[in-house]
Formats: sequence, structure tokens, C-alpha cells
Amino acid sequence: MIDKLPGGKLRRRGAHLKAAVLSAVLESVNEYGIRGFSVSDVAHRAGVHETSVYRRWSESRALLVAALYDRTDETLPVPDTGSLRGNLLAHLRQVADYLASPTGRASLQIAAATVQSDASEKARDDFWSSRSTVVELLLERARKTGEIVDVPDPEIAYELLAAPLYMRVLLTGRPIDEDYLTRIVDSFLRESTS
Amino acid sequence: MIDKLPGGKLRRRGAHLKAAVLSAVLESVNEYGIRGFSVSDVAHRAGVHETSVYRRWSESRALLVAALYDRTDETLPVPDTGSLRGNLLAHLRQVADYLASPTGRASLQIAAATVQSDASEKARDDFWSSRSTVVELLLERARKTGEIVDVPDPEIAYELLAAPLYMRVLLTGRPIDEDYLTRIVDSFLRESTS
Repeated sequence: MIDKLPGGKLRRRGAHLKAAVLSAVLESVNEYGIRGFSVSDVAHRAGVHETSVYRRWSESRALLVAALYDRTDETLPVPDTGSLRGNLLAHLRQVADYLASPTGRASLQIAAATVQSDASEKARDDFWSSRSTVVELLLERARKTGEIVDVPDPEIAYELLAAPLYMRVLLTGRPIDEDYLTRIVDSFLRESTS
Repeated sequence: MIDKLPGGKLRRRGAHLKAAVLSAVLESVNEYGIRGFSVSDVAHRAGVHETSVYRRWSESRALLVAALYDRTDETLPVPDTGSLRGNLLAHLRQVADYLASPTGRASLQIAAATVQSDASEKARDDFWSSRSTVVELLLERARKTGEIVDVPDPEIAYELLAAPLYMRVLLTGRPIDEDYLTRIVDSFLRESTS
């Protein structure tokens, strides 16, 4: 529900306010980095009063964590290229595109800055579990059709495939291109295929 | 060369000054985090004047980067357990221990905070290349003795093995224990042993 206020600000409520604020958090972090991020900038971008933000998220860390883990429930596309190799490659391409996007870069900064926070442990774990579901699904499907006989450890499969990408973005700064993605998938798959 | 100054401060020069300052950087980041880090705290810990620090490193980012990449030339131990699996496991244990140490935690924060810096690209690349040499050596040795027939892609082998550990420390916050290390090595090796 959105009303016009005298000052030209919008009165956003409930889900509208939440969505506007959390998306403003990612924009703000993307522009100013995790160190330059401020609640006043977020309120300005979302077109809401700062007090409305503080009413819901009492401190900036809670706001950062909420913006990141808001994506836990989103449905990730499940590739269907006809082969496990093609599917894993398509999925890693999605991860790479996301990491290269403004939202992805901002999310990664928030994740790295809040990993020490005990308060967000459950939300963090749920979020990362949600990220690994596509790979688990693809492996299970390939096992059922008989495309792979010896299924890789499903609980850590996502980490083995995606962690090198995160490491390149967060630590080494090396490029992530199609050749790199192919080498990761091929190293991972090299003999699980029958 | 170290002289006593009237104020009780030590006059450290050359390599002494450099070593004292760079190790103080890691201590400072470990205590206050990358956001709380300051040149004055570093100078205080190293027992040198702030101006001596600024003379050598004109800004704090250069100082952070120097502290991190100072380790590029250090010689990493090469495990010799009698099997490739044992060697890779021993090496990952070293990486895990390092990541859990105060120095390791501080280094990781600096690496993540400076990855966007173009100025440090060459130093960064040299550093990460130096980190992957042990795994390359272990794989090459196993290939020579015939322990593995199909050598995994050596250029990305270190990333495949170590990136999941970095991801746990930096992003998911999940524990790194012996069981986890074993599952990574076994997933990696599953197909290379003859």
C-alpha cells in the first residue's frame, strides 16, 4: 500500500516497504561498498523516512543481513540441456553472471562482512542450503537416468563447483570465463559419467 | 639496525622496520578488523613513529597489501606421507590451520578488501600462484610414480581443493573439520587414482 505524503515521500507499508528498503540496501552497498553504506542513504533511495527503516531493523547489520537472505525463498532456474555436463555448465554460468552483476557483487560483500555474526547463523545456513538445491537436483536426476553411476557427494557438490568462482571474485581477482567454467565442470565430472 | 631513541621508542630501519610494521598490520587487522585498522595503531604496535610508516607506505591500502603479499616468498612445507591422498589431506590441513589462525584470518580480510585494487594486481597474482605450488608439485610427483594416470588440471587443482575452505570461512561460516577435508580430497581424487 502506497500513499503520497505531503513532502513528496511515499508512504510504503508492509511488504512494499520491505521490498523497497531491501533492494535499496543492495543498491547502496553496490555504489558505496560495505564501508560507505548508511541507513540514511538507503532510506533516501527507497523514498521512505529513516525512522521507518529503524522501526523494522534496529541496526544496520540487521538490515544488511535481511537484504542478503531475503533471496533464500527465490526459485532458481533448473537447466535442462539434455546432459549433466551441459546442465552443470549452464548452472555455473548463472552463478558467474550473478556474481558479475551489481546485485551479486553487493550480496557477496554483505555475506563476507556478516559471516562472523552469530545472530544470522540460521538465516545464513538456510540461504546457502537454498543455493545448493539446483546442483543436488541435477545430480539426482542424472543418477536416476543412469547418466552417472557413482554420484558425487551431494552435500558438498555445490561447494566444489561454485567455491572456485567465489574465490576468484573475492580473493584472487582472476577472470571467470567460459573456458574456466568448462574446466571446473570437467574436473568435477571426470569419471562420474558412466 | 635498532637504536634506542630518547622517548623510549626503538629506531628500526630497513628490513627490521619493514618486518615489525608488516607484522603489526596483521595484528591490528586481527584485533580491530579491516574497518578499524589504522596506521597510528600499527605504528604504536611496531614501536615506530607514524611518519616512518608513511615514508615507506604512502597510504593505508598500500600498507595492507604489503602485509599480505609479504608472504609470497615464504616456503611452504611439502607433505610426504607416502600417498597422494595423504599428501593432499596434509596440505589441506595446513590451509585449514592457517585460516583458523589470527594471521590467517587477518590476511583473508585484507585479501577480500583489496581484490578490487588494480594497483596490486601483479602482487596478488604472484601471491596466489605461490599458494598453488605445493598442490602442483604433489600431483606431478604422483604422476611420475604412476600413482595417478590421469593428472587433474594442475592450474586449477589448488582452487578446486582449497576454494571450498575459503568459501566456508568467508561466506557460509560452516565448520571445517577432518571429515570435511577428507570428503573434499576424496571427491577430487575419486577418478584420478589408477
